[in-house]
Amino acid sequence: MTQKAAQEMGIFEVMYNNRAMRRLDSREIPEDMLVKLIEAASQAPSGSNMQNGRWIIVRDPTIKQRLAELNRAGVEAYIGPQGSNSGGLPHQSEDKRQRMLKAVMWQMEHLHEIPAIIIACMEFEQKVDSATMARSAGSIWPGVQNLLLAARAMGLGAAPTTLALARQSAVAEILNLPETMAAFCLIPVGYPLGNFGPVSRKPVADIMRFDGWSN
Amino acid sequence: MTQKAAQEMGIFEVMYNNRAMRRLDSREIPEDMLVKLIEAASQAPSGSNMQNGRWIIVRDPTIKQRLAELNRAGVEAYIGPQGSNSGGLPHQSEDKRQRMLKAVMWQMEHLHEIPAIIIACMEFEQKVDSATMARSAGSIWPGVQNLLLAARAMGLGAAPTTLALARQSAVAEILNLPETMAAFCLIPVGYPLGNFGPVSRKPVADIMRFDGWSN
Repeated sequence: MTQKAAQEMGIFEVMYNNRAMRRLDSREIPEDMLVKLIEAASQAPSGSNMQNGRWIIVRDPTIKQRLAELNRAGVEAYIGPQGSNSGGLPHQSEDKRQRMLKAVMWQMEHLHEIPAIIIACMEFEQKVDSATMARSAGSIWPGVQNLLLAARAMGLGAAPTTLALARQSAVAEILNLPETMAAFCLIPVGYPLGNFGPVSRKPVADIMRFDGWSN
Repeated sequence: MTQKAAQEMGIFEVMYNNRAMRRLDSREIPEDMLVKLIEAASQAPSGSNMQNGRWIIVRDPTIKQRLAELNRAGVEAYIGPQGSNSGGLPHQSEDKRQRMLKAVMWQMEHLHEIPAIIIACMEFEQKVDSATMARSAGSIWPGVQNLLLAARAMGLGAAPTTLALARQSAVAEILNLPETMAAFCLIPVGYPLGNFGPVSRKPVADIMRFDGWSN
């Protein structure tokens, strides 16, 4: 096995302790750490090895403010102002739902203060339509996961969201995207205010079968 | 920092050395390793923490044969019989393209012999349509990436493909999927016949910008 860097976290240690971190400090992140996140993201596979993932790191306060407004509209459409739509996350236990809602609301109020907002985009050869976006999602989301794991390994908090991106034309205008580019995911990144910790997941027996589903 | 298991590979070591492995040995994989792959996949995030990823591990020779037939049809539609459609991967250098084509053709001929074919699925509350699938891709592909990283860390070769899944009704019939489930990705897994190695990627400067794309 190749020698690994002294401070490098173990792969499973990272994966199993990568809780969504939404409450983030406003403290600036060194630029080389941000670049490292993108480099890590780019290691992920893409369909036919197209490597057409593109990444925009927003630090400019005005642009962050505009993204925060889009995110607010998206959150309110999904769970209602102040999280009032109690039907928004029906599959969660009440306690868990409340904790998640509070974190989403915190993020909504503070998004413009978070030091870096990373937008995962893709670039195509032609003007993008929704069918192209649908067909290509598998070539950008593995990179998003690499980015989230890399952030955790470097002590940075992050959590992916798509609620800000519902209006692609508004996103394109804010980020100067050409018509051949589309935004798939928004990832606020910063030093965490809370603690990293394990995620809780359904038992593997509930989500796995051998040879077919209904047998 | 938490103590990590003695044999655990470092997160970046795994990410930066996770080449798509298509030529795989027919040797059986211990079941606990397969279950570990699914558990690792399930640690990834999903939209609103729905956790609706589902995973089918196919080891049955008859079912593998039927998936291999679907894959053959998908590959031939994409790159032509025997890789004859030279326009199939225009963005690659000729040398790289030939190597990738050969590996894809090898996989096509041997898919039924590979010990485990994992199909990444999702389960929904209602009958699935293509719009639901498009909207949900971001909740299954991060798990696929976790699975690929976990495989590499355990010395297993893997590579994701979607060519076999173009005909969802045929896939559903083979895997006994209810109409509320859809298949997103197929991942053959086995001990590699070749060597693991680093991936080559575009320089980060080509795929990253600060604050907007065209500025």
